[in-house]
Amino acid sequence: MEKLDYPYEDFLTDTKILTQKIEWEFDTIIAIARGGLSLAQLLGEYYDLRAVYSINTIGYEDTQKLDSVQVFNLPQLEDAKSALIVDDIVDSGDTLIEVLKVLSEVYPHVTFKTASLFYKKSAKIAPNW
Amino acid sequence: MEKLDYPYEDFLTDTKILTQKIEWEFDTIIAIARGGLSLAQLLGEYYDLRAVYSINTIGYEDTQKLDSVQVFNLPQLEDAKSALIVDDIVDSGDTLIEVLKVLSEVYPHVTFKTASLFYKKSAKIAPNW
Repeated sequence: MEKLDYPYEDFLTDTKILTQKIEWEFDTIIAIARGGLSLAQLLGEYYDLRAVYSINTIGYEDTQKLDSVQVFNLPQLEDAKSALIVDDIVDSGDTLIEVLKVLSEVYPHVTFKTASLFYKKSAKIAPNW
Repeated sequence: MEKLDYPYEDFLTDTKILTQKIEWEFDTIIAIARGGLSLAQLLGEYYDLRAVYSINTIGYEDTQKLDSVQVFNLPQLEDAKSALIVDDIVDSGDTLIEVLKVLSEVYPHVTFKTASLFYKKSAKIAPNW
């Protein structure tokens, strides 16, 4: 992915705008690493939530099934009811789709919604915010 | 903990200084959430490491054993050899001590070292960097 020159002031401004759009109460934040880590920390501080977790993915482009994504390091969500999954950018959407799929399978009692600072219109899934 | 006004430019500068001090090769970065998440992302980008994980802790101050810390959401480290544990600040040191203890018990094959941007001289443990 190309590197964007993304000033920190814009990051703060965009995150602020994001919080104004998110009309939903959640008890947990899950960052898709690495890109979502900073955003998750900032949102955790903003919403005063200690339950800020992360999840990891690896994308395989050289397997038979193109662009398959492996999800690992799932957080424990036994006590969660509603979790916001965050990433800096939703690119193809493959990662977000797989993360949502795996988390929903393992934790059917949790409602998941998604937020990102950027997303490509060509992505297979749009974040909720 | 009191809130510090810590400008982002200082964060970048301090992280740069930190990378100049760390004379050690590692294959994994583990952020102590929430405070270490942004630092872990930045270091992951700097060292071009995808293995950026997080770990969570809860501190209990109202139990019989004062200041006990519970560690959860351990990352999978079966393939890791050397992991840098990062946090923004080492305060009392209780969290870092417990994280090191639990990770070393579960993953005795991994060498762990620690880095933080700040630490209090009164802390029971000093980070390696």
